Amino acid sequence: MHIHILSAVPELLESPFSHSIMKRAQDKGLLHVEVHNLRKWSLNKYKQIDDYQFGGGAGMVMMCEPLVNAIETLQKDAPFDEIIFLTPDGDTLDQPMANQLSLKKNLLIICGHYKGIDQRVRDQFVTKEISIGDYVLSGGELAAAVLVDAVGRLIPGVLNNETSALTDSFQDKLLAPPVYTRPVDFRGWKVPDVLLSGNHRLIDDWRHQQSVERTKKLRPDLLSGADLM
Amino acid sequence: MHIHILSAVPELLESPFSHSIMKRAQDKGLLHVEVHNLRKWSLNKYKQIDDYQFGGGAGMVMMCEPLVNAIETLQKDAPFDEIIFLTPDGDTLDQPMANQLSLKKNLLIICGHYKGIDQRVRDQFVTKEISIGDYVLSGGELAAAVLVDAVGRLIPGVLNNETSALTDSFQDKLLAPPVYTRPVDFRGWKVPDVLLSGNHRLIDDWRHQQSVERTKKLRPDLLSGADLM
Repeated sequence: MHIHILSAVPELLESPFSHSIMKRAQDKGLLHVEVHNLRKWSLNKYKQIDDYQFGGGAGMVMMCEPLVNAIETLQKDAPFDEIIFLTPDGDTLDQPMANQLSLKKNLLIICGHYKGIDQRVRDQFVTKEISIGDYVLSGGELAAAVLVDAVGRLIPGVLNNETSALTDSFQDKLLAPPVYTRPVDFRGWKVPDVLLSGNHRLIDDWRHQQSVERTKKLRPDLLSGADLM
Repeated sequence: MHIHILSAVPELLESPFSHSIMKRAQDKGLLHVEVHNLRKWSLNKYKQIDDYQFGGGAGMVMMCEPLVNAIETLQKDAPFDEIIFLTPDGDTLDQPMANQLSLKKNLLIICGHYKGIDQRVRDQFVTKEISIGDYVLSGGELAAAVLVDAVGRLIPGVLNNETSALTDSFQDKLLAPPVYTRPVDFRGWKVPDVLLSGNHRLIDDWRHQQSVERTKKLRPDLLSGADLM
């Protein structure tokens, strides 16, 4: 998968893709992330990419031309499957959306900054608007990093042990069960006996029961449609 | 505000706090973010911080001792207002939660990695579990960056123009209205006339109406309790 990211502050994204799982995904050739500095497509010598908003008010707006120049230049090589704008009023990212996006080949992600981007770019060029949650960030860069991570780890071969993704929270509409490791006794707090029993049927039953109980208590909204058998 | 972050992969967090608004917040002395490498508190010479999970299954679990050693060492200086664990089954982050957290003085954020952290740390030490959304990430680091950004920008004085945060999406339970900047005509797509009218009452009315319409269409769930006057 190829993911292009358009940003006014590309420096913010230097480290998130340079370590750990996202780095390994790129080293293996499964994921290619390119962060582009939007100023490269500015029309003037001041590298201007934003301007005051019409109608007045606080906060600058990212201009049409640099964004559209960038989009049109970058998709000369390969058309984008989706041109994504990250914005608090987009569709809320969830695991099914991440699963769907993990099947795409070529994505462009536009990071908003300041007060947002000119509405005409959203109306005419953007094909999908995504929010990572009901909160406001300084810019779209961290949201882009979150989206790339959530999607990238689902590409087959990225995780070393694929069952590790299949037993994550949300994949079966249940929260994950509690996990424990050594020592068995930490300051008097003990690992549940069943996990030390060696009886895999009992362990599986306990984990499923814990998942269901935890989901009922913390996120009953997830349970409609979940497989509780 | 002082925010400590405990991470198994602190390199991931090098850039998000070193540029733009989060950097300025720190330069102004309004926010102090310290990212700690959890391996510093490992008990053995291999710097081990994770181990196989009891009961079997894919994915490593972060051990009790390094985490608890770190927590107890770091809060010798100043007790934490909250010890936060970022996890998909935590309370979902939203703008009211970000507002509340922005009033705290000293936070610890624990980034999970691998399959999660030993449940005993969650039961005995963590005071608040937060999820940034219903999706799974490779680790808690990007979630921590998102949380720090969402909270940090609300600290008074961090944004240059405070009205810029007050007119964001969610602060009044309405999505933000569309924004436009120059040129007035881009390839035949024009800025709405009202924004060029110079009549601020008309402009305010139009923006409010756009916010309400956009919220009704995209996020009707936000409207219960919103002030639509």
